[in-house]
Amino acid sequence: MKKILLATTLIAASAGFAAAEVAVSGTARMGVADLGTVHGAQFNSRIRIIFTASGETDGGLSFGGSVRNDQSGVGNTANGDSTVYISGAFGKLTMGDTGNAADALVGQVSGVGYTSLNSLNELPWIATPKTGALYEYSAGALTFALGSSQVSSLAGTSSTMSAAAKYATDAYSIALGYEDNSAIGSQVSVLGSAAFSGATIKAKVANFDSAAAGVDAITAYALSVDYAINGVGLTAFYSDNGAAVDPAAYGIGASYDLGGGASVVGGIVKADAIKNTMFDLGVKMSF
Amino acid sequence: MKKILLATTLIAASAGFAAAEVAVSGTARMGVADLGTVHGAQFNSRIRIIFTASGETDGGLSFGGSVRNDQSGVGNTANGDSTVYISGAFGKLTMGDTGNAADALVGQVSGVGYTSLNSLNELPWIATPKTGALYEYSAGALTFALGSSQVSSLAGTSSTMSAAAKYATDAYSIALGYEDNSAIGSQVSVLGSAAFSGATIKAKVANFDSAAAGVDAITAYALSVDYAINGVGLTAFYSDNGAAVDPAAYGIGASYDLGGGASVVGGIVKADAIKNTMFDLGVKMSF
Amino acid sequence: MKKILLATTLIAASAGFAAAEVAVSGTARMGVADLGTVHGAQFNSRIRIIFTASGETDGGLSFGGSVRNDQSGVGNTANGDSTVYISGAFGKLTMGDTGNAADALVGQVSGVGYTSLNSLNELPWIATPKTGALYEYSAGALTFALGSSQVSSLAGTSSTMSAAAKYATDAYSIALGYEDNSAIGSQVSVLGSAAFSGATIKAKVANFDSAAAGVDAITAYALSVDYAINGVGLTAFYSDNGAAVDPAAYGIGASYDLGGGASVVGGIVKADAIKNTMFDLGVKMSF
Repeated sequence: MKKILLATTLIAASAGFAAAEVAVSGTARMGVADLGTVHGAQFNSRIRIIFTASGETDGGLSFGGSVRNDQSGVGNTANGDSTVYISGAFGKLTMGDTGNAADALVGQVSGVGYTSLNSLNELPWIATPKTGALYEYSAGALTFALGSSQVSSLAGTSSTMSAAAKYATDAYSIALGYEDNSAIGSQVSVLGSAAFSGATIKAKVANFDSAAAGVDAITAYALSVDYAINGVGLTAFYSDNGAAVDPAAYGIGASYDLGGGASVVGGIVKADAIKNTMFDLGVKMSF
Repeated sequence: MKKILLATTLIAASAGFAAAEVAVSGTARMGVADLGTVHGAQFNSRIRIIFTASGETDGGLSFGGSVRNDQSGVGNTANGDSTVYISGAFGKLTMGDTGNAADALVGQVSGVGYTSLNSLNELPWIATPKTGALYEYSAGALTFALGSSQVSSLAGTSSTMSAAAKYATDAYSIALGYEDNSAIGSQVSVLGSAAFSGATIKAKVANFDSAAAGVDAITAYALSVDYAINGVGLTAFYSDNGAAVDPAAYGIGASYDLGGGASVVGGIVKADAIKNTMFDLGVKMSF
Repeated sequence: MKKILLATTLIAASAGFAAAEVAVSGTARMGVADLGTVHGAQFNSRIRIIFTASGETDGGLSFGGSVRNDQSGVGNTANGDSTVYISGAFGKLTMGDTGNAADALVGQVSGVGYTSLNSLNELPWIATPKTGALYEYSAGALTFALGSSQVSSLAGTSSTMSAAAKYATDAYSIALGYEDNSAIGSQVSVLGSAAFSGATIKAKVANFDSAAAGVDAITAYALSVDYAINGVGLTAFYSDNGAAVDPAAYGIGASYDLGGGASVVGGIVKADAIKNTMFDLGVKMSF
């Protein structure tokens, strides 16, 4: 186990240089969740171990990567489960399961529940295979990002290109993202957030234009409010995915910080298209 | 690697608080085993890495979980490979691949061999999917446990409910378990153990009543003796699974502690129903 | 995370004994690679976490094992992903995914590229299932190895037996290997390497005799040159797999050490049988 780490670590410390390392952390959750399936409320638990590798070159570039214990690690051109990066004054270049630029900077409004309850608060991104590249550059409150899903010179394949920008202060943030895939379509998304008096409000709009002729554009939007008081966090969201029938979903949730990395979290959500109300209540842990 | 852990650990130490952590340990084994297959004696080795996460809330509750490197980590409602728990003065609640209450407290008589040799010393539990919840409470020498396999409101599904109690001192222990699944049947199991003069004797009886009409109850039993002398451990067991034909299995084995976490272990077992004698000899390691 | 390691490590250090441990390290790579497929140049990245367990018995034997995060860990008689060993004055015995004795001691000439570019520098070994045993013994500059793939008493199965010897000094090395499988054939391979004036030259010849009647022996060979100057490493190789048509492959590559565990590596290779030129350029990392 970890008992003889000290000898090695002392040697490294006396040598006085920074070496590459792998940190081991994790998350876990346990509780009861009704995710709208025929099974109703069920026990729902999991634990994930996270490996975070990092190092620094002699010239001051940072490099590293991350992968989870529960992932396959296929890697290479079919990478669905990890990221590798190199960063410096030029910005940060990440490859692997990066998400696109809009995903990285625009994000989503807040969700609820210790299991995320099917993430009904989220609006969709343009479908993207999990292998890609993401470039990010920050200057003060401004961050830019450019992304590309996996590329191929094979006829008939298309990549999703993406670009995004975000301006964030302690009090508010605004982010704009653009995604384009010649076979699927393009999407513009905007998310603004503002914090005041213990509350944080987030609003998002996404407009999707299909690449198919004669298909109308779809406008989706979502709104969330987070409110913190006496160690309790309260969250409510409303989302509209732009579908012609039953586009709405909504939810409320609460969390209580137990300290030491644990919190009690629960939520109730409903999507008009699914009918069943979903809920969960459990403990989230981080290590 | 682990070389720069010290800087971080020193900061944490000077801050003087306990934080959540993930410990990395492992087990390994290597040797030759004839497991009664058409292949005869074969090389048989494996290594497993174990992640044990733990933390403590501000209010003094302990929480954590465990998963192995070789497991899939699907988690959620189909959790087949890990456990997550929270414990305090109220007892300990575990979710995931917990085993049922009888499995947890009653256990089995001793087995032999560095590969366990198909665990012929064990009597079966009522079949249980691997996701469930287990509650345990200890008061002095007494421990109680209640368990439930995954629940579902879908018609036609059934859960295995279980309860067990154990009384243990340094010299002896007695445990009683009950399992019930409306579609399968119910089982009562008792295991007693007593230690004297370097020997430990364990005896177990399990009585299974099928839920099917007109099926007689099956009584199975098992017995083991462990004897330790001069660093050598000797074990013999006999089990009878209650089958109408060829119910018996038996085995003998020995182990020698090499120190530092390694031991040499070997065994010979035979099940009357299988005919082939099985054996193994190898090294077990823990890290 | 790793924050409270110190308390435990200090206790172990004051007790003054060596305990078994599991070290966590890793490798990663990212860049662009054209591996000769219809996709052309693509993003290519991966990260691997490596667990290395080790301990020592009271009698001074070393034991341990290794497995990666991205491997299945099936273990036992179908072990395709890990190794376990015990070593002492008698030598070192390893089980699991060991490679055969020739693979272990003879090795291959140098390759190029941060992805290895399909390892065209390598000559084949006799096909071997991944589970086996390998015994190695070193005396000064001499190392001997004996290997066996998994054994079976089932009619119609055959094992690959192997033996190898290597003599190595700082300036040069010579290794000879033999592999034999009654169903496949036998192979003799020789690899010599010599280092002088910043250059290392490796030459390998392998002669394969098929077990099938009337099939001529196949002679394959490979040659590589590594040259290091001002932190830049240059490598070129030529290999001939002995095929009747288009047996040749060749490649050149370069690497530049960034320090701290990172290096920039790129290569260009071509196999006459494949036609497409392959290339890659990326960053390799070790943690």
